[in-house]
Amino acid sequence: MQEKTVPYETLYDFTYGIFKKLGITDAELATKALLAADLRGVDSHGVARLSGYIRLIEAGRINPAAASKIVYQTPSTATIDGDKGLGLTVAPFAMQTAIEKAKSCGTGWVSVKNSNHFGIAAFHAMLALQYDMIGIAMTNASALVAPTFSTERLLGTNPVCVVIPAGVQPPFVADMATTTAANGKLEILQRKDAEAPVGWIQDKAGMLTTNAHALKDGGALLPLGSDKEHGSHKGYALGAVVDIFSALLSGANYGPWVPPFPAYVPMPVDQPGEGIGHFFGALRIDAFRPAAEFKQHMDNWITRFRTATPIDGFERVLIPGDPERETEGLRRRHGIPLHAAVVADLKALAKRFDLSF
Amino acid sequence: MQEKTVPYETLYDFTYGIFKKLGITDAELATKALLAADLRGVDSHGVARLSGYIRLIEAGRINPAAASKIVYQTPSTATIDGDKGLGLTVAPFAMQTAIEKAKSCGTGWVSVKNSNHFGIAAFHAMLALQYDMIGIAMTNASALVAPTFSTERLLGTNPVCVVIPAGVQPPFVADMATTTAANGKLEILQRKDAEAPVGWIQDKAGMLTTNAHALKDGGALLPLGSDKEHGSHKGYALGAVVDIFSALLSGANYGPWVPPFPAYVPMPVDQPGEGIGHFFGALRIDAFRPAAEFKQHMDNWITRFRTATPIDGFERVLIPGDPERETEGLRRRHGIPLHAAVVADLKALAKRFDLSF
Repeated sequence: MQEKTVPYETLYDFTYGIFKKLGITDAELATKALLAADLRGVDSHGVARLSGYIRLIEAGRINPAAASKIVYQTPSTATIDGDKGLGLTVAPFAMQTAIEKAKSCGTGWVSVKNSNHFGIAAFHAMLALQYDMIGIAMTNASALVAPTFSTERLLGTNPVCVVIPAGVQPPFVADMATTTAANGKLEILQRKDAEAPVGWIQDKAGMLTTNAHALKDGGALLPLGSDKEHGSHKGYALGAVVDIFSALLSGANYGPWVPPFPAYVPMPVDQPGEGIGHFFGALRIDAFRPAAEFKQHMDNWITRFRTATPIDGFERVLIPGDPERETEGLRRRHGIPLHAAVVADLKALAKRFDLSF
Repeated sequence: MQEKTVPYETLYDFTYGIFKKLGITDAELATKALLAADLRGVDSHGVARLSGYIRLIEAGRINPAAASKIVYQTPSTATIDGDKGLGLTVAPFAMQTAIEKAKSCGTGWVSVKNSNHFGIAAFHAMLALQYDMIGIAMTNASALVAPTFSTERLLGTNPVCVVIPAGVQPPFVADMATTTAANGKLEILQRKDAEAPVGWIQDKAGMLTTNAHALKDGGALLPLGSDKEHGSHKGYALGAVVDIFSALLSGANYGPWVPPFPAYVPMPVDQPGEGIGHFFGALRIDAFRPAAEFKQHMDNWITRFRTATPIDGFERVLIPGDPERETEGLRRRHGIPLHAAVVADLKALAKRFDLSF
């Protein structure tokens, strides 16, 4: 099976067709959320995970006909029960709830329990932009990361995304795992049987290693900062904050008890909560100052940083979100390149669901 | 001049005496905020900076009789003008405003302009704990940090603090510069003429260097992550978010235009805002779920992480805030050790202000 480049529309119709046949609540939204990853170049989180989501539905861990509901609230906050739904649709419901709260009282903050993997955080946080709001999205994930000094994996890669609108400049979009390297980057090295840079992972005894397969032998990803001397306690603290906001405020599972993505991996025992947790925020710009003023300064900020003198050998200083936006532009025009293994996977799904691919 | 260990009360009376003579609005609060750094072991941010604050007052950059006021607000937000005041008192006023907002609508968010250096973020964020709230505090600072790929210094060390209450366990207190190493740690190496670890700083051309004096020659501190391969673009994005929330929401200076702490350093030209900016948040736990439930899970979270199996050679896995709390316990009992240069500085101040030290 070979690599293949597929137009976004083809991938959209195919994914939508499968979600529809699975009885997913709001298949259109789920498709857009999933494929936002492929458009933005986060290949590990897009259509490559489609069959993983299907296996979770078939294992009864995702409820395709879920209906998220608010179970607790104040004027600026809400706690949402995701009803075991697909995170791809639970998350936009929660983000929209944060946006509505922000409309009425300046900001909105929503913690979510009983959800599942929500794709890329940026898709959800970026929903705030059309309302002239700052958007924040984060989620916990199953434990792959060792806190500083720990041999045990106790945190997920726990990404956080902050999206800030500008004026004539494109928005600031920072979407990052709170680890040195995202698990997707490690998976690429594993497929190539290549070495990982020192500082990405440790082995089961907690020693730094370049063996990209160390996670399979009880190793762990490292928090942003890599080791204590380079600030890994800060990356650990950031991952911990994401875990606590996402799961302890909502009543989801946390730390080593977060459900795994692969349906064949057994659930952790003695889980203290329900499903995976997320957290969302929306801040109306004009809750702090007139939006036009803010945007003018945001344009000035972006321009100053983007025109900074680069280090020899580098073309320019980037603004968070620049690479993903440029990738999206290219992929909307020229199509989305799919890895051979993904093509094979989608062809098998096509056969099973009686669709063409 | 020798090192000296001084009881907290002695240092308190001395500092309070000076702030009082300088006509500082709420000298008691200013003293507590400043000395919280000495108690918690952040020696670079405590009484060692006292004469620096005095020079800023004498240079007219800090208004000792300032009165902070709310200039813009919604039910969950406020923008505060610090009136060129001492950040040590502007920040608690802003944090208290966030707390009041949270009491009435679940969360409170406050952006501050026209302020100055506020000491350690943890002092302000921890004000939320007595109300069963999560506290957040952050500030921008004068540019010492180069964004990824930049030779220019465009960001401060821009610390962020998140404080989360627990039940029987002490609170979670993560207070961190968004750089690999805080500037205070580099200053210690400079005094000893020691080398810095690779990954803390770059020289003026943007090359990694171990020369702890490189900042004086146009070098820069590095964002958390150190280099692109180890995620420095994430540390850069975090520092940028702190800058934007603190200054672009409020109308303070940002990026390379943030006022320097040393009074002898000229102000940046063409400043786009007023003073330094801060940002504060307060989230009522019971705006999401009953506080007792949350605290029980927080205790469980802390216990699970603290009892994780440590790497050989390390005693235990720490919870953010553990080292500072332990230092505070020791220093309250045994006194605060002061560097010889600080002792000399305080003796000179004592003479000038007709106080004993």
